[in-house]
Amino acid sequence: MELLDQIRASIGDKYVVTGQDAQAWTRDWTDVYHWQPLAVTRPANTEEVQAIARACSAQNIAMVPVGGNTGLTGATKAQDAIMISLDRMNAIREIKPNAQVAIVESGAVLDSIHQAADAHDLVFPLIFGARGSAMIGGNLSTNAGGSNVLRYGNTRDLCLGLEVVLADGRVMNLMSELRKDNTGLNLKHMFIGAEGTLGIITAAVLRLYRKPLAYVTAMVGLRELEDALPLLIRLQNETGGGVEAFEFMPRRYIERHIERISGADEPFEGAHEVNILVEVASTRASDLQPDESGTPKLQAILETALMDMISNDKAQDAVIAQNEAQRRSMWARREAAAEITVGFPGAVDTDVAVPLEAVPSFLKQITARVQKIDPEGYEFYLSHLGDGNLHYTFYPSDRSGRLKEPITEAIEDVVLGLQGSFSAEHGIGLSKRNSMARRKDPVALEMMQAIKTALDPKNLMNPGKVYPEPDTR
Amino acid sequence: MELLDQIRASIGDKYVVTGQDAQAWTRDWTDVYHWQPLAVTRPANTEEVQAIARACSAQNIAMVPVGGNTGLTGATKAQDAIMISLDRMNAIREIKPNAQVAIVESGAVLDSIHQAADAHDLVFPLIFGARGSAMIGGNLSTNAGGSNVLRYGNTRDLCLGLEVVLADGRVMNLMSELRKDNTGLNLKHMFIGAEGTLGIITAAVLRLYRKPLAYVTAMVGLRELEDALPLLIRLQNETGGGVEAFEFMPRRYIERHIERISGADEPFEGAHEVNILVEVASTRASDLQPDESGTPKLQAILETALMDMISNDKAQDAVIAQNEAQRRSMWARREAAAEITVGFPGAVDTDVAVPLEAVPSFLKQITARVQKIDPEGYEFYLSHLGDGNLHYTFYPSDRSGRLKEPITEAIEDVVLGLQGSFSAEHGIGLSKRNSMARRKDPVALEMMQAIKTALDPKNLMNPGKVYPEPDTR
Repeated sequence: MELLDQIRASIGDKYVVTGQDAQAWTRDWTDVYHWQPLAVTRPANTEEVQAIARACSAQNIAMVPVGGNTGLTGATKAQDAIMISLDRMNAIREIKPNAQVAIVESGAVLDSIHQAADAHDLVFPLIFGARGSAMIGGNLSTNAGGSNVLRYGNTRDLCLGLEVVLADGRVMNLMSELRKDNTGLNLKHMFIGAEGTLGIITAAVLRLYRKPLAYVTAMVGLRELEDALPLLIRLQNETGGGVEAFEFMPRRYIERHIERISGADEPFEGAHEVNILVEVASTRASDLQPDESGTPKLQAILETALMDMISNDKAQDAVIAQNEAQRRSMWARREAAAEITVGFPGAVDTDVAVPLEAVPSFLKQITARVQKIDPEGYEFYLSHLGDGNLHYTFYPSDRSGRLKEPITEAIEDVVLGLQGSFSAEHGIGLSKRNSMARRKDPVALEMMQAIKTALDPKNLMNPGKVYPEPDTR
Repeated sequence: MELLDQIRASIGDKYVVTGQDAQAWTRDWTDVYHWQPLAVTRPANTEEVQAIARACSAQNIAMVPVGGNTGLTGATKAQDAIMISLDRMNAIREIKPNAQVAIVESGAVLDSIHQAADAHDLVFPLIFGARGSAMIGGNLSTNAGGSNVLRYGNTRDLCLGLEVVLADGRVMNLMSELRKDNTGLNLKHMFIGAEGTLGIITAAVLRLYRKPLAYVTAMVGLRELEDALPLLIRLQNETGGGVEAFEFMPRRYIERHIERISGADEPFEGAHEVNILVEVASTRASDLQPDESGTPKLQAILETALMDMISNDKAQDAVIAQNEAQRRSMWARREAAAEITVGFPGAVDTDVAVPLEAVPSFLKQITARVQKIDPEGYEFYLSHLGDGNLHYTFYPSDRSGRLKEPITEAIEDVVLGLQGSFSAEHGIGLSKRNSMARRKDPVALEMMQAIKTALDPKNLMNPGKVYPEPDTR
């Protein structure tokens, strides 16, 4: 094929992967979507990405950028397209400790950025289960969330600058390291979260934060979900905004975790309906100093808050991690979420957000709604409670797929009724295009499509994703 | 005129202002730009804005949205255009204390939002001198900065949702209150900072923050500007990121302030070259508790840091505000900046940013450069030092305007050489279009123009601003 020969000539034969060798790129992590790409190209630098884009553009061949392929929405499906894998562009070019920025290529694995920052007593605070294989380019393209959004924001809030190759091979250099930079339309924010439909992110400037001197992590079993928000507010006030994570796992989650993951155990001696993982952190040395009873101050803040809740009969039990191993084990339970949730065709897997105060109401309403539709179905959820973000999954009793749309629409109804979002942190990809068509502001959809057409007039960048298909609107 | 009659029919005769009554809208606050609008329209609600836009669009008449008219770049110049003043749309619709959001109309004056938040012990942390007349719609349209960006980010970071009327009168509802909301391209960020060239912002959802329980504010006189950054880093570490503002005023600023503003006084007994206004704040009750010597903890952190600098001969003097009146007086000195800087035709007034560490180098380099061009010229600057943002103004000895471009280009050379930005927080408007043409990444300019054309194909929204003119590129 002439196109592949052209690309081989630009980036080297061995980096144009086809047939059996491309097997790893014919599905994503969810194993729900499958496809056959024309080839997987593995450029070494921005110029090679440009060469691939120019070649594809000249022949009107679709391009699908891919990082760690850990997305949950089918956004890397690449049937009859050229995949552009950024995996060889994984350099962490520079860490600037005083400026607290990292300059990275987009194929850098998230964990490798964590490690590079850590070497300078800094953190890159984007944290989620797939961090060992997810790449920063994909995180930027989906504006990934995770467990620390509460404190540090989404991926877009952690990005100061970008380099992007456009569909026709032009390169746009927006690699600013500045906190203030108002020079016309903010294009960076247009490419972040565009899921590869506007161009290929090739490099980025990331914000780093000072590494906390101490973390204190606890599991707390509450009687009522409604009692969680006052705990969060109290801890935010007493730590000065130091809550790093505030995660909710219902009893069903704990049970399924023990069932599916070998070595998993109960967080408490008893069983509780509302299990909260809370982590506070501080960069202040004075927070490590012991109080009268010998407890370091940060820990005392959390301990006292939890003991008060037990005294008031709001909490049933609480456990504070006594060492890093115990902390890791608390986090491992939470981070097993994707493993124990995905991979069931027919399941309705959602990623919704509602205002913080509305989470209990969402759960009550949705349970009533889905029970009417499918009384035998099984619901399963967990929540980045501090962000109002819920991963709510429903497994219909009827595996035919017949109930998928009615259940999805019921969830959307409840979410929208509470002024929420049908897509909080995973992106749209293939899986939520119907929701986009149904639920997104129609003028906003027209504007998105106009921008897409303006920046990628031939519709070659990751076509068929994000924007609703004309026939579904 | 048929158009005006149409608009009168939609919004009422008295809200279509022409002739003498429109006098206030024929210039902006700088008094550098002057114009004659066709009329000033003062809609009462979003529907009336839509009606105006539809009428203008049908007759291909340009529209210029205007808020408090306090901009510094000529972005509201409206020759032969219909001005759309948002001043009647000034409602603060709702403050949600638990969710910490404010829902406001775009004509709300910044100070009124401050007051509404304060009533709930919350803050809207966008602070600058013109807050008594600037309106939030203008702040959003320019992505305004100010003194608290260091801690809370720019205006865009404080905005969760927007409502926008497009050139053709369609309305786009993006009024999300969520912290996580990934539903396709992030259009909100496209309209923020677009300076009214893509549409008219009519309402917004703003983030509020818990009001600090205490502020401690000081003036410190340093020997060397290079010693400022270590002080900032120390205070950030010891307060856990609690530095609200870190402002630099050189000796010349202090002198000019005393000269021009009645009642202004010296910050110290002696005269120092490097005067820093620093403010730290905390929401933690424990930071108000006295230490062994009876000093509240937050104050002790700042006091100790400043005393250490005096002991080490890095600081020459320091004064901590002992009450709110003294704090206000320190801030009044800083906030007089615009008044004592603007209004000199021929002056080269810039708003640049460089990486934090590069501020001393910028000043050394630029002074050498401008002295070569105009040894008799007068330079004047101040800096949001914590953001690397400098307002550097040069008054050429030759008032003909002949030196304006060479001086501007020299400043740009130095800024770009340090990886900085020629436009940090005031926006582009009319005054920096040449800089855009010369200095912005050319592919980025092409993308901006493509988006502008896609969203406003008739080029009716604030034409002639932001984007370089074809003939200057």
